[in-house]
Amino acid sequence: MRTELSPRFLAACRGEPTDAVPVWFMRQAGRSLPEYRALRARHPILELCRTPELAAEVTLQPVRRFGVDAAVLFSDIVVLLQAMGVRLDIVEGRGPVIAEPLRSATDVSRFGVPDVRSELADVLEAVRIVAAEAGVPVIGFAGAPFTLASYLIEGGPSKTHARTKAFMYSEPGAWHALLSSLAAAAAELLVAEVEAGAGAVQVFDSWAGFLAPADYEAYVLPHVRRIFDAVAPSGAVGIVFGVGTGELLGLLAASGADVIGVDWRVPLDAARARVGPRPALQGNLDPAACLAPPEVMDRLAADVLRRGGGRAHVFNLGHGVLPETNPDALARLVELVHSWSPDG
Amino acid sequence: MRTELSPRFLAACRGEPTDAVPVWFMRQAGRSLPEYRALRARHPILELCRTPELAAEVTLQPVRRFGVDAAVLFSDIVVLLQAMGVRLDIVEGRGPVIAEPLRSATDVSRFGVPDVRSELADVLEAVRIVAAEAGVPVIGFAGAPFTLASYLIEGGPSKTHARTKAFMYSEPGAWHALLSSLAAAAAELLVAEVEAGAGAVQVFDSWAGFLAPADYEAYVLPHVRRIFDAVAPSGAVGIVFGVGTGELLGLLAASGADVIGVDWRVPLDAARARVGPRPALQGNLDPAACLAPPEVMDRLAADVLRRGGGRAHVFNLGHGVLPETNPDALARLVELVHSWSPDG
Repeated sequence: MRTELSPRFLAACRGEPTDAVPVWFMRQAGRSLPEYRALRARHPILELCRTPELAAEVTLQPVRRFGVDAAVLFSDIVVLLQAMGVRLDIVEGRGPVIAEPLRSATDVSRFGVPDVRSELADVLEAVRIVAAEAGVPVIGFAGAPFTLASYLIEGGPSKTHARTKAFMYSEPGAWHALLSSLAAAAAELLVAEVEAGAGAVQVFDSWAGFLAPADYEAYVLPHVRRIFDAVAPSGAVGIVFGVGTGELLGLLAASGADVIGVDWRVPLDAARARVGPRPALQGNLDPAACLAPPEVMDRLAADVLRRGGGRAHVFNLGHGVLPETNPDALARLVELVHSWSPDG
Repeated sequence: MRTELSPRFLAACRGEPTDAVPVWFMRQAGRSLPEYRALRARHPILELCRTPELAAEVTLQPVRRFGVDAAVLFSDIVVLLQAMGVRLDIVEGRGPVIAEPLRSATDVSRFGVPDVRSELADVLEAVRIVAAEAGVPVIGFAGAPFTLASYLIEGGPSKTHARTKAFMYSEPGAWHALLSSLAAAAAELLVAEVEAGAGAVQVFDSWAGFLAPADYEAYVLPHVRRIFDAVAPSGAVGIVFGVGTGELLGLLAASGADVIGVDWRVPLDAARARVGPRPALQGNLDPAACLAPPEVMDRLAADVLRRGGGRAHVFNLGHGVLPETNPDALARLVELVHSWSPDG
């Protein structure tokens, strides 16, 4: 039923022709919306993520407001770590903080694959509510193994991921065991989200862009591939996204994802040359363009559309919506994208 | 005299053959060295930068310890802002903090080109001391206009540079006036450093990699080019470096720099394809490789050397030395690089 109401997003992800370029925004649900801030004033962020009705409401807010072509589940990649028994909190202005970071190879055995259907029943219930109400496809999501491993090992956000890389270089056996567990857990969650009604899943590898290509290929890619292999039989669309991944695009295309998210640094025509003809591309307006005067934003967005070519392209920002964004700019973008045609 | 003692670094920068690949490390002077920490325990960082004998001593420490092929001046890009009358401090764990950030187009007129020979006489004196004592070429340096502008506008380090980009998009006239002033100031400083004995200058555009290529070309590149145009008549080698600049490498090569610094994300052979045959390349071992077991570090460094091809290549890390680096790893790297030969 979803795809009958609004088939654009899934069709473009599969490389099929569409009546208009579909559009959604990473972090469309959240900080930039006054209706979100009103809820957030009463609930800590993890409470929003872990209460089905609230997570669903936050997910639906931008769909109602903007008429975007997909509803990305409001959640956080750390819920999967919670399900694996990791004690953590999200600290205002800092990000996730892990109570007991992983510091040695023997610690890896602490992390087994959780029963997501019971541990994350609330998240799956939120997907069910959204799938029934959104009128557009739901995008489920999970953190990618490298990014989750970095949080576990660093104990929180890092500017360099030095400790993570040192572990990766020094303890390859334990590293691969850890990433296997994280990938298996992510795959479990994504498959369950699809069963709950998600039509697509996005794997967020926020920090993968900190790796040189040879390291990504040797230490990370096999695990990401296993996630998409697990999702493929469900028929859902698989999307992979990271920041600063210009040099990894060809490897990301080898992950089995249907759609490669591209940050704003790589023009989409250059990205296309790196990924080959098969996968769809998602992106990639600089989020700061939404702070520009409307005519500047329009020019920059039109350039993205032109380079995207109007086929196998899902319009998005090149990273999440900035908190200081005026929602009117996003509304304007949706209109611009939907009315754009490759013939000018 | 410098070039007779150790011509490798300047020769490689100019694309001339050398007896071995030259090597130095960004942030070779500083946080990872116990002899630096001993000094730092007694002096705030800006006092080290602004006291000629101390800045020279810190600059010389890694040259004595490692036998690197160049002595990069220990300084900070904010000294140029100090010379322009900007009140600022470097706050532990945060970075530079500007007392009165630039918030409107009219503020731009506050920033004129300083008389660096009087305002930064101490920095130039440090260059003179190092040039007399180092036995290897001295690399002077300055911050690039975009990076300096970002500090001025954001008021300190930023994860998104959103305010800077919003200013750039909204006030193009004031933006170009600001970057012109910053570029003229940087050029003044670099030319004076060359007169004081520097054989090369490096322009640090730490944050340029946050810009999409079209924005870098329109809003930043003309100003960087003016810096290298000003330095060229001195005969000193010009180097430009930024992080996450994979998509900008072709534009950086058009800046007039002799050497393009490459971060660890872009394999040097891929970088060479983007910059063309003319400029030398500098880089690009992942700084985290220095935390790996020696045999892993050696393998990764050998891969960098192989991709660099042994000509017009200055070995370096792809970003600054991490504070947790064991100096022995850097000593090992210097030996490995100097003994490497393209014939195996």
